[in-house]
Amino acid sequence: MVCKEVKITAEKIAKMEIRGAGKIARSAAEALKACTKASKAKSADDFVKELGEAGTALIAARPSAVSLPNAVRFIINRVQNANLSARKLKELTIKTVDKFIEDSEKAVERIGEIGARRISDGDVIMTHCHSAAVLSVIKTAWRQGKKIRVIATESRPRYQGHITVRELIKEGIPCTLIVDSAVRAFMKQADKVIVGADSIAANGAVVNKIGTSQLALAAHEARVLFLVAAESYKFHPQTLVGELVEIEERSAKEVANPQDFRGAEIRNPAFDITPPEYIDLIITEKGVMPPQAAILVIKEEFGWAVTGL
Amino acid sequence: MVCKEVKITAEKIAKMEIRGAGKIARSAAEALKACTKASKAKSADDFVKELGEAGTALIAARPSAVSLPNAVRFIINRVQNANLSARKLKELTIKTVDKFIEDSEKAVERIGEIGARRISDGDVIMTHCHSAAVLSVIKTAWRQGKKIRVIATESRPRYQGHITVRELIKEGIPCTLIVDSAVRAFMKQADKVIVGADSIAANGAVVNKIGTSQLALAAHEARVLFLVAAESYKFHPQTLVGELVEIEERSAKEVANPQDFRGAEIRNPAFDITPPEYIDLIITEKGVMPPQAAILVIKEEFGWAVTGL
Amino acid sequence: MVCKEVKITAEKIAKMEIRGAGKIARSAAEALKACTKASKAKSADDFVKELGEAGTALIAARPSAVSLPNAVRFIINRVQNANLSARKLKELTIKTVDKFIEDSEKAVERIGEIGARRISDGDVIMTHCHSAAVLSVIKTAWRQGKKIRVIATESRPRYQGHITVRELIKEGIPCTLIVDSAVRAFMKQADKVIVGADSIAANGAVVNKIGTSQLALAAHEARVLFLVAAESYKFHPQTLVGELVEIEERSAKEVANPQDFRGAEIRNPAFDITPPEYIDLIITEKGVMPPQAAILVIKEEFGWAVTGL
Amino acid sequence: MVCKEVKITAEKIAKMEIRGAGKIARSAAEALKACTKASKAKSADDFVKELGEAGTALIAARPSAVSLPNAVRFIINRVQNANLSARKLKELTIKTVDKFIEDSEKAVERIGEIGARRISDGDVIMTHCHSAAVLSVIKTAWRQGKKIRVIATESRPRYQGHITVRELIKEGIPCTLIVDSAVRAFMKQADKVIVGADSIAANGAVVNKIGTSQLALAAHEARVLFLVAAESYKFHPQTLVGELVEIEERSAKEVANPQDFRGAEIRNPAFDITPPEYIDLIITEKGVMPPQAAILVIKEEFGWAVTGL
Amino acid sequence: MVCKEVKITAEKIAKMEIRGAGKIARSAAEALKACTKASKAKSADDFVKELGEAGTALIAARPSAVSLPNAVRFIINRVQNANLSARKLKELTIKTVDKFIEDSEKAVERIGEIGARRISDGDVIMTHCHSAAVLSVIKTAWRQGKKIRVIATESRPRYQGHITVRELIKEGIPCTLIVDSAVRAFMKQADKVIVGADSIAANGAVVNKIGTSQLALAAHEARVLFLVAAESYKFHPQTLVGELVEIEERSAKEVANPQDFRGAEIRNPAFDITPPEYIDLIITEKGVMPPQAAILVIKEEFGWAVTGL
Amino acid sequence: MVCKEVKITAEKIAKMEIRGAGKIARSAAEALKACTKASKAKSADDFVKELGEAGTALIAARPSAVSLPNAVRFIINRVQNANLSARKLKELTIKTVDKFIEDSEKAVERIGEIGARRISDGDVIMTHCHSAAVLSVIKTAWRQGKKIRVIATESRPRYQGHITVRELIKEGIPCTLIVDSAVRAFMKQADKVIVGADSIAANGAVVNKIGTSQLALAAHEARVLFLVAAESYKFHPQTLVGELVEIEERSAKEVANPQDFRGAEIRNPAFDITPPEYIDLIITEKGVMPPQAAILVIKEEFGWAVTGL
Repeated sequence: MVCKEVKITAEKIAKMEIRGAGKIARSAAEALKACTKASKAKSADDFVKELGEAGTALIAARPSAVSLPNAVRFIINRVQNANLSARKLKELTIKTVDKFIEDSEKAVERIGEIGARRISDGDVIMTHCHSAAVLSVIKTAWRQGKKIRVIATESRPRYQGHITVRELIKEGIPCTLIVDSAVRAFMKQADKVIVGADSIAANGAVVNKIGTSQLALAAHEARVLFLVAAESYKFHPQTLVGELVEIEERSAKEVANPQDFRGAEIRNPAFDITPPEYIDLIITEKGVMPPQAAILVIKEEFGWAVTGL
Repeated sequence: MVCKEVKITAEKIAKMEIRGAGKIARSAAEALKACTKASKAKSADDFVKELGEAGTALIAARPSAVSLPNAVRFIINRVQNANLSARKLKELTIKTVDKFIEDSEKAVERIGEIGARRISDGDVIMTHCHSAAVLSVIKTAWRQGKKIRVIATESRPRYQGHITVRELIKEGIPCTLIVDSAVRAFMKQADKVIVGADSIAANGAVVNKIGTSQLALAAHEARVLFLVAAESYKFHPQTLVGELVEIEERSAKEVANPQDFRGAEIRNPAFDITPPEYIDLIITEKGVMPPQAAILVIKEEFGWAVTGL
Repeated sequence: MVCKEVKITAEKIAKMEIRGAGKIARSAAEALKACTKASKAKSADDFVKELGEAGTALIAARPSAVSLPNAVRFIINRVQNANLSARKLKELTIKTVDKFIEDSEKAVERIGEIGARRISDGDVIMTHCHSAAVLSVIKTAWRQGKKIRVIATESRPRYQGHITVRELIKEGIPCTLIVDSAVRAFMKQADKVIVGADSIAANGAVVNKIGTSQLALAAHEARVLFLVAAESYKFHPQTLVGELVEIEERSAKEVANPQDFRGAEIRNPAFDITPPEYIDLIITEKGVMPPQAAILVIKEEFGWAVTGL
Repeated sequence: MVCKEVKITAEKIAKMEIRGAGKIARSAAEALKACTKASKAKSADDFVKELGEAGTALIAARPSAVSLPNAVRFIINRVQNANLSARKLKELTIKTVDKFIEDSEKAVERIGEIGARRISDGDVIMTHCHSAAVLSVIKTAWRQGKKIRVIATESRPRYQGHITVRELIKEGIPCTLIVDSAVRAFMKQADKVIVGADSIAANGAVVNKIGTSQLALAAHEARVLFLVAAESYKFHPQTLVGELVEIEERSAKEVANPQDFRGAEIRNPAFDITPPEYIDLIITEKGVMPPQAAILVIKEEFGWAVTGL
Repeated sequence: MVCKEVKITAEKIAKMEIRGAGKIARSAAEALKACTKASKAKSADDFVKELGEAGTALIAARPSAVSLPNAVRFIINRVQNANLSARKLKELTIKTVDKFIEDSEKAVERIGEIGARRISDGDVIMTHCHSAAVLSVIKTAWRQGKKIRVIATESRPRYQGHITVRELIKEGIPCTLIVDSAVRAFMKQADKVIVGADSIAANGAVVNKIGTSQLALAAHEARVLFLVAAESYKFHPQTLVGELVEIEERSAKEVANPQDFRGAEIRNPAFDITPPEYIDLIITEKGVMPPQAAILVIKEEFGWAVTGL
Repeated sequence: MVCKEVKITAEKIAKMEIRGAGKIARSAAEALKACTKASKAKSADDFVKELGEAGTALIAARPSAVSLPNAVRFIINRVQNANLSARKLKELTIKTVDKFIEDSEKAVERIGEIGARRISDGDVIMTHCHSAAVLSVIKTAWRQGKKIRVIATESRPRYQGHITVRELIKEGIPCTLIVDSAVRAFMKQADKVIVGADSIAANGAVVNKIGTSQLALAAHEARVLFLVAAESYKFHPQTLVGELVEIEERSAKEVANPQDFRGAEIRNPAFDITPPEYIDLIITEKGVMPPQAAILVIKEEFGWAVTGL
């Protein structure tokens, strides 16, 4: 039986009251902490069992959000095999949660610092959709005094590119808005492309907003550097054992009014997959790495065998 | 001094009352015919001069519409060096105009017939924007009983893909509407891509609706056949002497409300350029050909030297 | 009503008593000649009609053998629009037939001469299946004293590579026999690949023995020159108007005993299609050319419009 | 002096009475276990020396079979630096052997589970030659109810593809048998290619049955996923220090009767090398990984320096 | 027996007193004109024979200079089959020579005009070695007011890049001198590469100064346009019948002092071959064309069969 | 305050009296050892602080020489977190320095042994500039009796290729000297390319003598193996946190006399960057690895976070 805090948090995640990869991860960690504090377990074994049940309940709330199982597994993995008393184990769990939350909060900022070192004065940077990690890189570079310019796609069907442009305007960073079809036509002007990630597979393939793989292909064709900015909890450990990342199909209404097109099908996958051969570097808060090193991070965090908790 | 019909036609073309590559070409030819009928020239030389002036006036009305100078040059080239009396020359001019108009009217139909032979039962065909020649190929194949399916992009910013889908629905052809960013994600399902052309350069490069070159690149990557359906008057003879095809930049308002994005630039080029290495075949009313044979058609119609009339 | 000789020849072609692209072409031409000699037509129009019927009957005997319609069309095209009397027309027809036969007989020899100029002393040449034109090139180079070596695939399922190796042994040319799977492993040793053609399409694609396109792909990967040796009557004029080249599917028994594999399907297409981007040169008796110039030959021999006779 | 069991096992391996990567590895481990039980060594050092001599004797029996030295090194590496008494060391050795054997036996099954997650309902899978690991993936997916279809090459010269097809028929899995030359022609129909491995080098290059690299090249061209299924003891640690994998040349008689081709050479290499850039994933019992992570596995199992035992 | 003027010219060409593709061509034409004027032939046949002997003598003077046989064949081909009297034939010959010379003299200027249309304001142009045609394009664009910048390689071993830079300095055109090894490092800055040609083969391959193919490869990699500027008499008709273009090997002393490197070989080929797939356009005085259209020009000027005169 | 030996060494490094990646690294290590011996620190903390100051001073002497911070960090990282007394810590430091120096001295020799295993009898090896590691590989292979041949570029502007050729002549190894522009023309003759490295980034990109990336590109095009021979202290840990490797621009005078080219700019970058996709293997003293494994070495030596000491 899981504790109240876990139930509440799981419910909020399921109802999408808690959203965003980072927030989901941190709230799940908080729930495990609350659960630890409330635990009456006397033996280490009992406590680990409790924690496992709490983790399972949290993950079940939205299993496709990769940061959620990652947060839960990160914490439990660091606890379950420690040869400690129940009391010490609880202390370790709380410390682990606190560390996880702190690291997670600093990750975007740290990505900004690391990524900005890859931006040169005068660079033209193309981006797609809206990503906090990408904006952190761009703003950090800009604040360092680098004269950069951004080309942002509108990112149909939900126009998240507009959000990106508004954030850039607020910061005073020169930028150009284009339709998604104009990516290849403008690629020659770009020095670098930077996009975010929804999740990253064991082979370095990046799942991100539909259209990302077209930017990658056009960048590859023009030999423009293609960078992905992503917190390390975006790495998807289950892909290590062969699981495929499921691509969410969203409502047709986002694309056009289905009434106007009866007799035709409207398709609206939210993401596409960019193969590793089109990715030059992944920028994480741990450092930059080629996509082929994704497995190194996954293995280090979770070990080879990633089934069950 | 050019005749009244030429003036009127030129004006209508300039004001875009007469639109569409085919209609422009045919109305210019008609104007030359009217001008011939009205001509009071006694000598062949005088008549040729008159015709030349009429041609120049027509071309000036909208020089960037490649079918316009093509129509004028097609007719005048066939007339000006014929060693005939003024009367005979006028007769030849009228016959040439009639032939040109007839051929032009049949071109789209003929492209449909030829192109449909390249469509196999069961094919999935991706297209972009809206092209009469492309729809002629698709409909002809469908009417031949081939069970095909079409994937159409919405073609931002003006959503001409919606027109394509509506025409397909009317015909009962199964089709799927996608956003432009989804091209690469859906390419694996396609057997062929067919697009139209705004104009075709001497090296086989195709100028067409923004986004076309992205379809071509993604098709090339996936080794999906990339076909261009275009009437032969889309071939651009001046490119033979090095002229670049100018790319029209349309109003920013088509993309987004500029008021909402003050401080940012909005760019809206109407076309992009697909390099010949991504084009498998060009389907014209004269037959199919690799893009490298574009020059063969241009040379045959206009000769090597294409400057002035 | 067609003459007896045409009937007999058509029957022999249909029953495959007359085989081989060259022999089929020449026997059809002979039949037209016999038909001309036997003709009792008084007017040119009547004669042309007779000839057309004879041609139609011959082509119907085996329409997929591209050299057959090519021979018929070559002769009729040169005759039907000549503004001559019936008698003169018959003379012209006979002369055209004789010329066609002579050229055809010399074509393989001429290809040998031209192709041998592309072979350098010390070259290692890979080939596939068995082609008279390819062997003509190799033998000519060898007889010129060039120390060459040949790598021949066995060419399953019918082992025509064995015939090639036997011809090479007879000539004393050093050669190596490999299985078809070893093509890529041996490609690094090769300086050139030369193969024959069953037919060549308007875009320069080459239809030839199954496996040819794999040699082409592996040669392209290793940047080894890939040459096609083919008589010009292998060019396929109907492809100009969009016709697809049909790929013959042969008996499963050639691959394995179907009784031993009940429950499984055995597929045995005789040919595959090599795209023009993997072909460096086509060697014909008219000269060498890039594949994109195939259309030049077709257009020159048959004109743009190739439908019906 | 090595013990009797080691001698017998070494002999059987040398005479190929014990065959197959898995069986060789496990029998060598068993021999080391027998040798441990029989050992009369009093000190840890003496025992390690004995074990080393046994290992050397076993490896010498067939050094090119990569699973043999891998098994020996796996066991000895885990033992030789343990700071234990002779008795404890022997216990550890026996435990290590048992673990190795158990893992090895489960490896193929585990690869089936992991690999099947990468197979989607409706997939068409191409394979080459005959591999237990590949069949484990295919059968597992089939038993999960996925409607798949297999295209199998005959795999000249020894037709191991026939064995694959027979196993598939027995299981009721729809399959198609083709000649090796038809690989590229059928690639467009395939969704995935899966092959086994003879050994895998430190840079991720895969040594496998002749023809494998052609499948890989054709899959890469068509952007069809290319997967390798291989137990982790196929990784080749000596390649880390630069050793080249030797390619076995088998009897010419497998290809054709040399008597029939006197004057020609017949070549019959058993394997070819597929470069890492054509491999999307390697499926091992430890998880899936990009080929560039091969070194991670090697390093983890054997450390950087792999010379001598 | 050939006339005196032909002998003198042939001698000067052989001794390289007359040098440069254009000068050689024009002096050979002049010699044929002189020979025509001096001719005492009464019949057309005799005159053609005389002219043929003169042509043969001229070609023999330096057969590897492609413009020489081209000039001779251009003139003789236009004369030999004209059905005219001896007198008329001589007149035609003189007219043909005059036309050839005039065209040749204007060719570089005309290439400048045509090529300059491909240069945009702000372009950075990379070039290699020293070519009059290339400089004509660059200077014409500059004089049209386009603000361009040139990157010139030094072009070891003979530093002809220094000549290019000096000409550019004289004209005031901004330029940068780099070593040949820096081509790829600077390619990202370039918008276009333009080089000259020593000769152009029937498949569109360009023979030019050693290093040209590296520029082409690096331009292709970076998707920078690669243009060749060449007079049409650089097209090599014999390649149509399979002849290979011979690559001149120059003195080792140009590279280093052989005394200093006894025991080593020094190689110094003057030219390399750029394959057509790396060439976007060839700019000739007749117009721009893709490399695959080279054969069109050759065929048009010389016909299919180019052996002997 | 840093000790005298550190000051002296730092000065010599700054003045380039101590040069060469290996020598710089070893002298810095020696300085740390001297500093340790001279240290009067009583507590471990004080000693670590002293060592840190010494390290900072040494690195400041020439921060762009990657082996310098690598040596300092290698030693300090192994010491600073050891939970030992001051005395024990000093002993550990001295041992670590001795080990580092010994390893460094053996690295080139060890690279020779490992790399030579990748060289086959009969190989033709192309190289660029002058590298001790590359020569170690070549000479080791040659001394093993492998009949190899070397093609060496002259390596403008400083002709270091001459040094390479002289060393090869001394050893009696057959070699050919070519200009840098001839790389692509000679690539077809090469079996392998081996070059050294100035530094190697976290994504496997190799910084080396200008022109290296052109060899890599041409090797990639011709599918010739491209190998990099480099000591592991060439790996650049700061690139892991996004730092770009700065490319040194050397004096224009090395290229040409600037006086002779007033009005033009002369550029002379010393290095270029070869992207990982063109590198087959990196040969280090630790073993061979694909470029994507560079990060594995960096992470292992320095951990994820590499900022400050």
